[in-house]
Order: sequence, then structure tokens, then C-alpha cells
Amino acid sequence: MATTPPGKIYLHEQLADFVRGLIEDGTFRPGDRVPSLRGIAGRFSVSLATATRAYEALEQRGWIEARPQSGFYVRTPHALDLEPPARGETPGYPERVDVQGLTRGLIAHDDAGEAVTLSLALPADELIPSKGLGRAISRAVRREPALAARYTFPPGLEQLRRRIAGQAVDAGCRVHPDDVLVTTGCSEALTIALSAVARPGEVVAVESPTFFKILTMIEALGMRALELPTDPIDGVDVAALERAFASGTAQAALLIPSFNNPLGSCMPESQRAAVADLAARYRVPVIEDDIYGDLYFGERRPPLLRAFDTSGWVLTASSFSKTIAPGYRIGWLLPGRFYERALHHQHAYTLGTSAVTQMGMTDFLASRSFPHHLRGLRRTYRGQVERMRYAIARAFPGGTRVSRPSGGFVLWVELPGDVDGTTIYQAALAEGIRVAPGTLFSTGKAYDGYIRISCGGLWNDVLDDAIHRLGRIVAGALPNDGPGEPSHHRAPLETQ
Amino acid sequence: MATTPPGKIYLHEQLADFVRGLIEDGTFRPGDRVPSLRGIAGRFSVSLATATRAYEALEQRGWIEARPQSGFYVRTPHALDLEPPARGETPGYPERVDVQGLTRGLIAHDDAGEAVTLSLALPADELIPSKGLGRAISRAVRREPALAARYTFPPGLEQLRRRIAGQAVDAGCRVHPDDVLVTTGCSEALTIALSAVARPGEVVAVESPTFFKILTMIEALGMRALELPTDPIDGVDVAALERAFASGTAQAALLIPSFNNPLGSCMPESQRAAVADLAARYRVPVIEDDIYGDLYFGERRPPLLRAFDTSGWVLTASSFSKTIAPGYRIGWLLPGRFYERALHHQHAYTLGTSAVTQMGMTDFLASRSFPHHLRGLRRTYRGQVERMRYAIARAFPGGTRVSRPSGGFVLWVELPGDVDGTTIYQAALAEGIRVAPGTLFSTGKAYDGYIRISCGGLWNDVLDDAIHRLGRIVAGALPNDGPGEPSHHRAPLETQ
Repeated sequence: MATTPPGKIYLHEQLADFVRGLIEDGTFRPGDRVPSLRGIAGRFSVSLATATRAYEALEQRGWIEARPQSGFYVRTPHALDLEPPARGETPGYPERVDVQGLTRGLIAHDDAGEAVTLSLALPADELIPSKGLGRAISRAVRREPALAARYTFPPGLEQLRRRIAGQAVDAGCRVHPDDVLVTTGCSEALTIALSAVARPGEVVAVESPTFFKILTMIEALGMRALELPTDPIDGVDVAALERAFASGTAQAALLIPSFNNPLGSCMPESQRAAVADLAARYRVPVIEDDIYGDLYFGERRPPLLRAFDTSGWVLTASSFSKTIAPGYRIGWLLPGRFYERALHHQHAYTLGTSAVTQMGMTDFLASRSFPHHLRGLRRTYRGQVERMRYAIARAFPGGTRVSRPSGGFVLWVELPGDVDGTTIYQAALAEGIRVAPGTLFSTGKAYDGYIRISCGGLWNDVLDDAIHRLGRIVAGALPNDGPGEPSHHRAPLETQ
Repeated sequence: MATTPPGKIYLHEQLADFVRGLIEDGTFRPGDRVPSLRGIAGRFSVSLATATRAYEALEQRGWIEARPQSGFYVRTPHALDLEPPARGETPGYPERVDVQGLTRGLIAHDDAGEAVTLSLALPADELIPSKGLGRAISRAVRREPALAARYTFPPGLEQLRRRIAGQAVDAGCRVHPDDVLVTTGCSEALTIALSAVARPGEVVAVESPTFFKILTMIEALGMRALELPTDPIDGVDVAALERAFASGTAQAALLIPSFNNPLGSCMPESQRAAVADLAARYRVPVIEDDIYGDLYFGERRPPLLRAFDTSGWVLTASSFSKTIAPGYRIGWLLPGRFYERALHHQHAYTLGTSAVTQMGMTDFLASRSFPHHLRGLRRTYRGQVERMRYAIARAFPGGTRVSRPSGGFVLWVELPGDVDGTTIYQAALAEGIRVAPGTLFSTGKAYDGYIRISCGGLWNDVLDDAIHRLGRIVAGALPNDGPGEPSHHRAPLETQ
């Protein structure tokens, strides 16, 4: 522990050393916010200029980083910053999907809720503005009880559609309220979108890996999936997508351009423009799942694919399940040129989501707490993702690789050696820790050596302990001659 | 107008004549409740025995009828009781379905809501306990805000599943809470059921006519419909159903055994037993849509098909949309032996309906007002259906036939001559009156000469006037040499 500095003038180097000491001690960990410039200048009676110089020095040396309008945060030390996973192998031909059994088991287990759940991408209860939402819904039913009890036929409540259209400005789009279909979560939005653009037996191009629910949906609708090579940083391989379109192999695509789940990849704008162009040129519909789009860590929200679409071949699906509350089941679809068909399918399938929750959500979106909530949520998830990466780097054996997402709240972990993700899933389950085995995220075997870890839960000692135990489980599963050293040069905490 | 009787003793015949006079005057119309025995005995200072004899006399002469625990009601005069429609012709082979365009137009129009809507089977706002529901939902979110905001994964909230299972006792079934899947209305229940039992391209046997949304669903899922001859009173022709199963023509069936929409037919118990037996014997799943089952007019609820099913080949879909409130989107599926597949499909499609509305509905079902509400609703719909039949009999030209449902709240009207239902639909629309054209209820042309009229709205002068105008529209559409006389022997009111 560093000694408390006396309350006199420090040169900026001394101040920098002091803060670095706190980081080395683990008082401030990666993802934590360090004291503000004004705060530290005041505490140590230095000028703001000195404090600024100190933090600049720390920033240059890679200890902290500035985040606009938010302050300075501890960075993951370079030595502990694991490499992102390698690209998975894709078979290059469409596959029948058959992952429902496994995913069902996963959710069934997690529903029980007596263990440490790192398996599902769920926001922690503490991150859901449930009281504000409760008040909004009570207000709405008191004000308009009859409206709340009536059918709200597709496309859904006009006031809510206006709010959703308004939000799209942030994502670089001009959306008319009449372009919006309110759905039962992003899940129904994707189901309707797939039903509107493809038929049973047809082939949908997806990223590899991709969210397991997308695969179960494709399976449930009797379609096939074509997995495309996907870069852990930049997302889907556009040339591969073009080949799938040009050859007529794929009749549609379903991508997660912003913070692919599980990979965390985010497509650069130029690639988005190229994909939107392919869709229009080959007249092949591209569905984008933007459920994590608002949870960006950088300065600016990534634009929608749709922002580059001029002819309606891009469909956008999203929801408030990750940003506000999953239990309200409010999502939306911007079906582009497939509007009429999407509307037909929603009429046929569910007749739309409940009037009550549409009204409550509209009220909540109109409240002043919403933008504030969203800003806080981004900061929190960014911090949690960093803490989790750091904890994994300390706890897991050498050779482990972890994704470096710039948004969302899941991590994609490539296990060292030939350790099997499903083995780890089962061993962890026996210890009351739930992770998602990588095999779920593909129709093939490319990700059997992976697990996905969700950072939706608030960081605490139980989580910290779970990651250390998980690291031991992985180490124990390594073959004896395999890489056994921890992935960093300091002894993991739990070996004491 | 009959003169007010002096307050002295009447013999029972005099009392009977007096009440009959009120009915002849139209003071009490078919479906109205006449004063209670106790009330009329007190008012005219006669003994309860005399009042009882008077009402018995009226009952024997067909003027009124007793309804258990409810009182005496004016019957439709025999001369005005139109015959039920004839059986439609069915093609005998499976058809691709293509009715979405028409039904969409229908709902889009009704959504606007500035006209007299007789087209959709919607409960009137006054019949929805919206304030009680509003209070229930506010209580629930205040008590458990976090639960309300969280995912409630399929199969849905356990307390709600217990309530639904408990209700099934009335319908002759022992259902375990774990047999229940909570869905987004009956609509999602049917979609999931169809997806679980049949594949695209397969054939689903349905009644002829059947609810247009069932046809749009079959269309949306890429299946085909085989329409079976259906009796306006007793429901589907069981022999035809057996032929479809035995020949392998149909891979599933979807029936509305209790108060088929639009026909109003209700299958006798023996036929239900026979259908359940066919399902088990041929191992062909039969889905029953029971959405109107609780709205029976008789003394006893018709049992479910499922009550006769011993091996899980019957699936039951229903909801609270007609009995409590459509806007809450709470339905359920009892998937029988298809439980796992149904659960898979709900995971893939919507991930379940909102936690908030499940909690609110659970609270409302637990309240004392629910059984009371349901009893009142049955009485109201029975009265409205009778009033509507009577009004149609007075207003429509001779040769019109109207269904005589024993539950639900829609009427199926066979137009006289060769009058086309779609022509009437359009002519009525031009006058601001919306009806559902018969052609929607079939893949073929058998019901082009029909319209469906909903009795969901509370009876009032606007409705009364709309039916008279509708009658004139139908009369005006008759060929000059066709049947032109009104269907009853008294001049319709509106000809004055």
C-alpha cells in the first residue's frame, strides 16, 4: 500500500506515480474510474494544469484512458490484455440447424436462478429501471384503462412508433413512424423478418459465430444457415457475403453489425456501406439485428446498416430488452420494402404485443430519466466488460484468448490447448457456475473450444470468485503437456 | 301502449296478458330480461304462486324462457326465428390459402374506428373490466417491480399457469400447471401449435367455414388447408375427418369445437369423444381452439376435446381475449405430447409474453370480481346475440338465414337470392358500416353469399339503425325477380 501523500505540492510526475501505485495495488482495477482532475487537484493542492499533465503522462504510458464526458479510467495492462480469438473455420455450404435441444437446456437451467449465471446475456436487476417503468405503466393504465385493455393491432401504438423513429436519428437514419412495426421483443422482430424475406428450405447467410437464438429461429422456420467467415474486430467478410449472393447460395442474410453476439465485432462504416450496396445490387434482403447498437463504448453510436440503404433491402430489428427491460417485451422491426409482408406475418402470428406495455414504455421513453439511464448503462457495461477481461486474464491459463468488444456485454473466450467448451460448461455447472458453450453459436464444430461469458451482472466478490474457479476448471482440463502457465506474468490471486 | 294496470289483484292470465303486451309493444325485446317473479308479484300484489303460473303460461306459449340463476327472458318469436344457414360445399382436396390481403384490409379499416363495426369479434369497451385490470397491474408492478421487468421465459409465470390449470376443471379436464404454456394471446398459441405438429407443405384439416385468422396462419406457415363439411349445429363431419386421417390426406387438424367462428356450431360430447379417439387411433394431432368455450349460453360449459383425450394427441389453445381483455395478450396452449416442440417454437419465436401483463392477469384472476364478471358476460352476450338475430329477422329480406349459436358472439348470415357478401361488405363500408364478408372464411367460393356479424358491441340505437340500413342494402342488391319480401310477416320498423 502506498503511503498517504502529505497535503503539499506535488510535481505532476509524483502525482502520476502515486496514482499508478494505486492501480498496481489493485485499489483501482481496470474499468474503474480514477478520481477526476478537479478532484485530485483539490485533494493534493496542485493546479489543474499539473493534474492534467499527470494524467496525460499516465495515459501515454497506457495506465489510464480518457473517456469523453465521463472521466479517466484504468486500462487493462498491456501484459494482461489477451489477444482476441482467431477466426473460426466455416464449412462454406448451408447447414440444417439443430441446436434447440442444447439452448433449451441452457435457458432451463438459468431460469432456476440459484447459481452464478454467466451464460445468458441478461442485464442485472440493478441495471433495469424497474421502478420508473412501474410508475410509467401505472400512470398509463390509470389515465387510459380502456385503451390498455383493447387490441392494439399491428403496426402498434402510434406514439411509441414515433419515439422509436425519433431514436433512429442517433443511428444515422431518417425513419418515419409508419416504417415501424412494434413487436414482442427483438425475437419476434427477427422471426417476422425472416418469415417475410425467405421461405422454408431457403438459405440465410449469418456470421460465424452468431447468436444461438438466430440459429434456433432459422431451424424453427425450416430454413438453412450459411455461416460466413467473420473477423473478431471488423465483422462479416464482405467478399464472402458477395459470393453467397452472387452464386445464389443465400436467399437472405441476417447479421449483427454492431457488437455481434458472441464475437463483439463491429463493422466499420465502409463495410456497412458495401453490405447495403450488395443487398440492393443483388436484390437480396439483409436483416440487421441491432439489439446492442445503443450499448457502444466509444464516442459515437455506430450507424445502422440501414443508414446506407437507399432501396429498402435492409431490414432492422431491435428492442429495449438490453437497454431498458426485457420483461416488457417491446421490440421493433423496420421492414423496409418488406413492410406489407412483415405486417401480414405479425397479424398471423401474435396480433402484436400488449397495449399496456406499449403504453408504459412510451411513457418511460418520454421521461427525462431515459437518456440519463442510457448514458449510465453504457459506462457500467464498459466497466464490467473490462473488469471481466482483466479477471479472465488473471485467472485463466496461458493461451486463452478473449474478445475485445467495443460495445455490448458479452465476451467470447477461446480456450487454450484443445479444451472443450462443453466439458467446461458441464464442469462449471457442477460447481454452480453457468457459462454458454461455444458449440451453440454455430451449426458446425468450429467453436467447440470456446465459451461465451456474459458481463450483464454487477461485479462483486461472488463473480470474481466464480471467474477464478472457472480458470481452475479450465486449467484442470488441459492435457498435461499442454500450455499450463497462467496467461500473465503475475500469480493469479486465488493461488494464495 | 298498454294502460298501466291498477294496483289490485290480477289473475295469472291477466298478468300473463299484460306482460305479453309489453313484449308485443317492443318495450321488452327478444333477449331482454322481464321483471323477476318476486318483483312482479310485489308490484301487482299477487302471490308468488300466481306470478309463477303467469310466467309458466308465457313460457309454454313461447314468449319467454327461464334461464337458471338468471331469470326469465323474452324469446325470439317463432315467426322471426330464421333458419340456420345451409351446409357449405367443400372442394374435398387441400387448398393453398391466400386470404391475407383481404383480412388485412378488414382490420386496417376497423382500426380507424370511426364507423359502426360489426366486422371483428371484439368485446365492447364496456364489457372489459379495464379498471379492475388496471388496478391489478399497478398492484403487481408496485409489489414486484424487478420481476415485472425481467424476462419470464417460456412456459411462463408459474402462478398464472396454476390459475389456467385450475380453470380447466370447469371444462372437464385435469391439467397440471406444467402442461401449460403461456402465450401472446390465442393467436400465438395456435401458431406455436401448428408449427409444433406440422411442417410447411403439410395439410391441416379445418372446419368449413372457419375463422379467417386460422387460414392466414396456415398460409403464413406455408401449410395447406383441407376444409371439411361442417354442420351449423353439430360442427365438423366426423366421418369426413376420419377419411382425411385414414387416407393420409391431412397431417393435422385445427377445429373450433365450441362455438365455431363464424358458424356458432357446438360439437356434441359423443362427437368430441369420437374426434379424440380418431386423433389417438391415427396418431394425427388435433388442435382445438377454445377461445369462445367460456361464453356458453346453456347451463353447462361444453367440455374440451381434451377431456376425451387419453394419449396427448389433442392440443388446446385459448386466451382471455374474449372473456377478459384482448389488450393484455394473455393466451395459453396445452400442447399435450407436443410440449417440448411447442416450447422450442416459443423460445424461437417470441421468448414469451410480457412479465408485467402475466402478473396483472394473475392478480385479476385471483380477485373475487372474476367469476362474477364471467357470469355477467355470458348473460350479456346471450342477450346481444338474441337481439341481433331479432333485428336481422326484422330488417333483412325474406330468404335470409341466420345461425343460432349457443355461445360466443358472432352470427353467420346466409344472404337471400344470389346476393354477394363482398358486394354487401363494400356497399355497407360506403355507409360507414363494417361487416365481414363470408369469402374470408374459406379458401374457396362456398361462402361468397354470406356475411359474419359480430355482436360484441353493446346494443344501442346506432346498432339498431345500422342493421336496418344493412337490411335495405341487402334488399337493394337482390335481383328484381328474386325474393323481396321481408323475412317476417310484420313491416320492418324503418319503412315508416
